[in-house]
Amino acid sequence: MKRTLISDIWKNHEKLNGRTVSVSGWARTVRDVKNFGFIELNDGSGHRSAQVVFERGKGYDYDEIARQNVGAALTVVGALAATPENQQPFEIKADQITVEGASAEDYPLQKKRHSMEFLREKAYLRPRTNVFNAVFRIRSLAAFAIHEFFNKRGFVYVHTPIITGSDAEGAGAMFQVTTLDLENPPRNVSEKPAPDLEGLPRNVFGENAPINASEKTTGPTEARAKAAEVDYTQDFFGKKAGLTVSGQLNVEAFAMAFSNVYTFGPTFRAEKSNTTRHAAEFWMIEPEMAFCDLKGDMDTAEAMVKYIVSYTLKNAAPELEFLNKFVDTGLIGRLKNVRDNKFARLTYTEAVGILEKAIAEKKDRFEFPVFWGCDLQSEHERFITEEIYKKPVFLIDYPKDIKAFYMRLNDDGKTVAAADLLAPGIGELVGGSQREERLDMLEKRMAEMGLNAGDYWWYTDLRRFGGNKHAGYGLGFDRMVMYLTGISNIRDVTPYPRTVGSIEF
Amino acid sequence: MKRTLISDIWKNHEKLNGRTVSVSGWARTVRDVKNFGFIELNDGSGHRSAQVVFERGKGYDYDEIARQNVGAALTVVGALAATPENQQPFEIKADQITVEGASAEDYPLQKKRHSMEFLREKAYLRPRTNVFNAVFRIRSLAAFAIHEFFNKRGFVYVHTPIITGSDAEGAGAMFQVTTLDLENPPRNVSEKPAPDLEGLPRNVFGENAPINASEKTTGPTEARAKAAEVDYTQDFFGKKAGLTVSGQLNVEAFAMAFSNVYTFGPTFRAEKSNTTRHAAEFWMIEPEMAFCDLKGDMDTAEAMVKYIVSYTLKNAAPELEFLNKFVDTGLIGRLKNVRDNKFARLTYTEAVGILEKAIAEKKDRFEFPVFWGCDLQSEHERFITEEIYKKPVFLIDYPKDIKAFYMRLNDDGKTVAAADLLAPGIGELVGGSQREERLDMLEKRMAEMGLNAGDYWWYTDLRRFGGNKHAGYGLGFDRMVMYLTGISNIRDVTPYPRTVGSIEF
Repeated sequence: MKRTLISDIWKNHEKLNGRTVSVSGWARTVRDVKNFGFIELNDGSGHRSAQVVFERGKGYDYDEIARQNVGAALTVVGALAATPENQQPFEIKADQITVEGASAEDYPLQKKRHSMEFLREKAYLRPRTNVFNAVFRIRSLAAFAIHEFFNKRGFVYVHTPIITGSDAEGAGAMFQVTTLDLENPPRNVSEKPAPDLEGLPRNVFGENAPINASEKTTGPTEARAKAAEVDYTQDFFGKKAGLTVSGQLNVEAFAMAFSNVYTFGPTFRAEKSNTTRHAAEFWMIEPEMAFCDLKGDMDTAEAMVKYIVSYTLKNAAPELEFLNKFVDTGLIGRLKNVRDNKFARLTYTEAVGILEKAIAEKKDRFEFPVFWGCDLQSEHERFITEEIYKKPVFLIDYPKDIKAFYMRLNDDGKTVAAADLLAPGIGELVGGSQREERLDMLEKRMAEMGLNAGDYWWYTDLRRFGGNKHAGYGLGFDRMVMYLTGISNIRDVTPYPRTVGSIEF
Repeated sequence: MKRTLISDIWKNHEKLNGRTVSVSGWARTVRDVKNFGFIELNDGSGHRSAQVVFERGKGYDYDEIARQNVGAALTVVGALAATPENQQPFEIKADQITVEGASAEDYPLQKKRHSMEFLREKAYLRPRTNVFNAVFRIRSLAAFAIHEFFNKRGFVYVHTPIITGSDAEGAGAMFQVTTLDLENPPRNVSEKPAPDLEGLPRNVFGENAPINASEKTTGPTEARAKAAEVDYTQDFFGKKAGLTVSGQLNVEAFAMAFSNVYTFGPTFRAEKSNTTRHAAEFWMIEPEMAFCDLKGDMDTAEAMVKYIVSYTLKNAAPELEFLNKFVDTGLIGRLKNVRDNKFARLTYTEAVGILEKAIAEKKDRFEFPVFWGCDLQSEHERFITEEIYKKPVFLIDYPKDIKAFYMRLNDDGKTVAAADLLAPGIGELVGGSQREERLDMLEKRMAEMGLNAGDYWWYTDLRRFGGNKHAGYGLGFDRMVMYLTGISNIRDVTPYPRTVGSIEF
């Protein structure tokens, strides 16, 4: 008999009343009340389970079923019966039950609350719990909402490269990608050894190795490295390569062809931070729009965030209710607030004024000092969005010295056309800017920041060949999922989190 | 004035007749006919351009406009005029023209056909050409079609990890990911040096380095490596890590929670092959279904391929017409054939019989020999799908020795429940299988193939905790885009291709 998904039964249980259905799933609980019993069966097609009633004298061994452990995979065929008097509006009266796969006694998930830390150690099983079932379904729905939002607006989705030869995007520490043998990488044999090493013996690598040098001698090490650096012409790509920190530069080239484009892919940071908000591997969305200024950029970002939130409220109601009850009681209220209110927009300079006023009123309001030019701390951002505006806020026109080289210099010569979206309960959600389209200004900024324009030849060339005002932003997807679920640790919204020291599974 | 996308004008040009519009885009051609001229303006919102007519005596410097090079970014405001007598059904009579960004004289794309090889060197500009405009828009549409197909069916999208600590998936050579300094990686100082090295001096790395050893001495090198291997406890993840070759094992765990799931993300192969069908970085879709056998697997794969093809035929008609005319005249016919025909299904054994019969009729039919147990070559696959069936064919039940360890052993003990989808014009498009859900059989297969079951502890555990018959497949996305566009080199369907020796941009 053809399987029916439990989510479809929930949708149609009134019509299905009295009909025989076949369902397959995993037992959440098995209760034996002597001659009959109950199974809470969940197949993951939706948040809600089906209640199965089994009894002696049917086409299965009652005791065998009653013995099944939590986690067992079962197929149940039986009639759907409406139970309007119960909490659950229907149950399935089992005529046949097949044990597709038993669950061993040491199954770690029992019918009790496990800590998030415990479940992290069971990353291959935790999607079977109520909370992770909700989180990972919302993650999936949010991803679809994003693709649908951009598809409806004609944006072209671009797969920017993961492995990159550019190591100077300045957005953070990079992982290196290589096929060289780290135990014994090929080295350039220097034709002209550094003068002070001449005459020293060569070791098996053709390197100059001083005799009897102690482990702490550093001078010769440096000279030796110079004389015999790793030979990257023998690496897979013929040069040093790493994992991307952002697809922005690459996707700008596509905006100059399609007008409206976006990326949605993994990005990486090799920073050894150990916070609840940073992962070494995370997914990012980076839209880019030609013929677009900072206002257009914010309009798109606001529409996108509202679209994701509305889509989730509409398509994940049971999941959100569960999370609102057990994880974060402010969740649904906060999401509706985002959906229903126009986001505020104010300048960095205005925000500094507000913060200075708050300090004037209460001296020890903040831990970190506030002054024009400072990089705002999380406490400052949250004060603005949570205490003052009580809704999402775009801060614009930041001091140029705390922002990236590609942001467009404003006419005041001091600020750039950046826009960060701050949201209550999480802080920065989106970081965007209008890009510097003027070649001379861009090159000047790169020089000021110590970047070699030659490394970006094709990026600067975009300004010579029909460049124009354009803008874009980045949304950290994992952080967006934290916002949608009320989950406070990035490790718990990512299927298999990658953080410093952690790569099990 | 608010910008209108040229694709929206094409949709509504009859309604817009006589109305003033503002368009922005890049000049494909600028033709000066003395006192008036024509600009073919493309904004990338669709495949088709708008024709702009400009003339002397309007609100712009005629000569400045006439001088603009191909590639210049322009904003044009003017009235839309129907031109039913011309090839193009409308034109825009420019009242104002703003040069948003000129295009320098050395702009490499001119109004002529450039070779694909030349355009590959200009990867940052090639999306502005007609052919790449079509290819990358189809790529984007196909990606959306895939997400929509699975979303409609309630599949949960799972971001499986890109960086993995498992180096034994057996699907191909892996890239290593590291934050260690390759010039000078930390090494384990062996507490007990290998006996034959005792008494030798230590170099600055604390390694045993023989004195005056010639470059060709290999014995001591090996011993030395043993004595002081790279210390991966100091690497970012505390162990050796690499780039994933497949998300399948990870996503199986999610299928055991949500029933129906899929991945769509980048995967990697560090193979130094230089073919038109292999890239080092490519995107893959890997659905996985619980309580599902090989038949269900093929049903989903067939429905998905047809969905992608139908979606593209419907939403990329101008692009497909262009490609059908200039790249591959069989393209649209082939796609309709896929959309409209039920795919054939036959066993590997039957296919071998067909091939042997063909050889009996014509001895030198194939270059490579055919016998039961052989891995079919591309020429064999294409003969089956192009000559015999003339439509897509699933080949099932392959000899176990040429397939992966996780495929379910059939009752004959010789074959496994694998299904490869072969398509005319491209060969293998999808590779799938029912997975081995029986723990003892799985462990036996792993042992036979020399794999260490301990490395897969959580994967085998899935069989102990409510395992059940399940199946899935992989679709190489870049190869699917080749199929949808008729483009014969994978480098030309990937925004910034990564192949051996190639990582510019």
